[in-house]
Amino acid sequence: MAPNHADNGNAFADDNVRLDLLRERAFNLRWAELPHDVIPLTAADPDFPAAPAIRDAIAEYAASGVFSYGQVGGLPTFRESVARYLRDQRKSPVTPDGVIAVNSAASGLAIVASQWLSPGDEAIIFDPVDFLFAHTVRAAGGLPVSWSFGRNDALDLDHLATLVTSRTRMICICNPHNPLGRCFTREELTALGRFCTERGIRILSDEIWSEIVYAPAQFTSMLSLDDDIAANVVVVHGFSKSFGLAGLRVGYIAMIDPDQRARMVERSEHPSTVDGTSTLSQIAAAAAYDHALPWLESFVAHLRDRRDQCVTALRSIPGVEVHSPDATYVAFARIQREGVSIEALTDMLRAEHRVAVVPGSARWFGAGAEGHMRLCFATSEAILAAGMQRFVAGMAASANLPRPFLNEP
Amino acid sequence: MAPNHADNGNAFADDNVRLDLLRERAFNLRWAELPHDVIPLTAADPDFPAAPAIRDAIAEYAASGVFSYGQVGGLPTFRESVARYLRDQRKSPVTPDGVIAVNSAASGLAIVASQWLSPGDEAIIFDPVDFLFAHTVRAAGGLPVSWSFGRNDALDLDHLATLVTSRTRMICICNPHNPLGRCFTREELTALGRFCTERGIRILSDEIWSEIVYAPAQFTSMLSLDDDIAANVVVVHGFSKSFGLAGLRVGYIAMIDPDQRARMVERSEHPSTVDGTSTLSQIAAAAAYDHALPWLESFVAHLRDRRDQCVTALRSIPGVEVHSPDATYVAFARIQREGVSIEALTDMLRAEHRVAVVPGSARWFGAGAEGHMRLCFATSEAILAAGMQRFVAGMAASANLPRPFLNEP
Repeated sequence: MAPNHADNGNAFADDNVRLDLLRERAFNLRWAELPHDVIPLTAADPDFPAAPAIRDAIAEYAASGVFSYGQVGGLPTFRESVARYLRDQRKSPVTPDGVIAVNSAASGLAIVASQWLSPGDEAIIFDPVDFLFAHTVRAAGGLPVSWSFGRNDALDLDHLATLVTSRTRMICICNPHNPLGRCFTREELTALGRFCTERGIRILSDEIWSEIVYAPAQFTSMLSLDDDIAANVVVVHGFSKSFGLAGLRVGYIAMIDPDQRARMVERSEHPSTVDGTSTLSQIAAAAAYDHALPWLESFVAHLRDRRDQCVTALRSIPGVEVHSPDATYVAFARIQREGVSIEALTDMLRAEHRVAVVPGSARWFGAGAEGHMRLCFATSEAILAAGMQRFVAGMAASANLPRPFLNEP
Repeated sequence: MAPNHADNGNAFADDNVRLDLLRERAFNLRWAELPHDVIPLTAADPDFPAAPAIRDAIAEYAASGVFSYGQVGGLPTFRESVARYLRDQRKSPVTPDGVIAVNSAASGLAIVASQWLSPGDEAIIFDPVDFLFAHTVRAAGGLPVSWSFGRNDALDLDHLATLVTSRTRMICICNPHNPLGRCFTREELTALGRFCTERGIRILSDEIWSEIVYAPAQFTSMLSLDDDIAANVVVVHGFSKSFGLAGLRVGYIAMIDPDQRARMVERSEHPSTVDGTSTLSQIAAAAAYDHALPWLESFVAHLRDRRDQCVTALRSIPGVEVHSPDATYVAFARIQREGVSIEALTDMLRAEHRVAVVPGSARWFGAGAEGHMRLCFATSEAILAAGMQRFVAGMAASANLPRPFLNEP
């Protein structure tokens, strides 16, 4: 078993996983939605409590009890923290007037799609990729156009060019990529950025995984590329993956141009108050950037060990292939079980072996995900060990099962 | 000056208004958005900190740091608290499976409108009334049809019948009524409910003001009427007015039928995670219902005195008429100043007399609001006294100003 660096600070030790609370609070296919003896390696949500600095900031803000209406588009303090972070950590020339607080990164994707697309417009999205891209493009009346590539394929701009039509308005980038765990290089992104800028295609860059990156891989923000490209980019980010704040529903949209930002706020449902972001959640998120970066560094060190632990276990299984992810805390494994559907296999693993994973179905990740499973490894060493032991045992059993047992009806 | 009942508990005393924090945190035309010497009697948002029980619940939940994904449609504990409250306090037979947590009452209105209306469908809304009804109906592709009446007019169902067409799908009720401060009687609501039920018109009842009611007026929920009517009703509520939690963005939709509730959740943006409600905000709101009802009672007692203080001051001004509101903490005053626009007068009051109010423009309240101003009195005795003194002085000055000074260009 790999050493657990984070044990130094104890934040990621086994006994810091509060199973009692997770069983009450962790929904979305996790502890609170499954029988108590099932280990969920499902939704990408960490099993660890948020950083102490975040909890302290919430307690301090809440002690006074002043929870008045927040500012449309985000609190000044939140936008200042985000802009400072993007300048200092990401070399992205964003000011507070380029930041919009949103009620989750998913909400940010929906806002951008609704503002950039008119009915019938086309948006190019990766395949496989998280379902939210196609979902928000369709909700805006747009048509998602799939750009398929694999974990190690170079980004083929000649192929991309064949997907562009007169109705192409935007391309949705997921970097680092969920579920492939791929971190695109500065060279790849620059070439892609030029391609889009030359053609007047806007770039939506979902960078929600950008803080969970394993050296030597390096993250590059689209907003840190040259001025022409950056002017054409909007970044969406959230605080669920890096800081475990999914329940607080807080993220942001960032861009260079304050005028574009003002138009985007004005045309959103924020001024009407139909949409908006909890002020307390913004306080928590600002504290994450202002005070919890050392915690984040320990978290990533812990996750690197869990990645290796997960990948090693997966590679021990005949008929399972997996690339070690450069980023994210999910492993995306290709499963070869002839005549067996991934959904049936996933159901069997949960029912018979008490471990839950996400099937790589077209519904969740696009057609390119068929034949895969996604496993989240953002948990403790012991829980992951137990989960992978069950997974390995279940996959071994599945290899010996009579085919009709597992076939879909 | 009326006695301040709440001084007993001190929660609503002058020195409990944290101007230092309000100037940082209270947006939406309030302290943080105006010069420091302007008194805002604008957005309906209290100047007082939230109840200690709510602050304690936030601190306790946050101390553990477990902020995982919440449940789609709302946490079980939140839905249980709401259902218990509606059964015990409102005689409404709602179960936890009839409750949806929403990211503000405004978001609730939008969800209901989007699910009940198809493009071209008509929705009948009061005039005057808060702008959110027409806004959310239009956003859903529907057509708002205005039903005009005054503060003391009986609800004229014969007139209402003339507004109904084959495309009428819903009627939006605001009870208690903002900005009229009117609390509809059980008899009025029953007649209206029968009218709608007989015609297959659904009823959306915004009851966000239902906890701010002054005896002998009594609030009746549409969900507490007979079974036939209640089955045809959806109630929207929030925690901003009664408990000062506007910044936390939390409210609910409540209905009798769990199947209708399930369909409404399924067709909303909650399952996709594009929309949703902060778990911490739901914890705060549940604590409000579970533990802060005594605080609310003191708050309403304090507000009754402020209502009388505000109405007395308004009635001292020549050319100003106001009904004493039975509910809400806003006074809706009719202003007679020949040749002067309400917007110009409002601007002058803010600029010259350092008191801000909301002009009763068609944009915010419908055509029926023209010629009015809305004043919020949810503050301390001293702040309200100072604000009303400025208002009275400003209105006296306006009566003597040369007309061209105040005319719109």
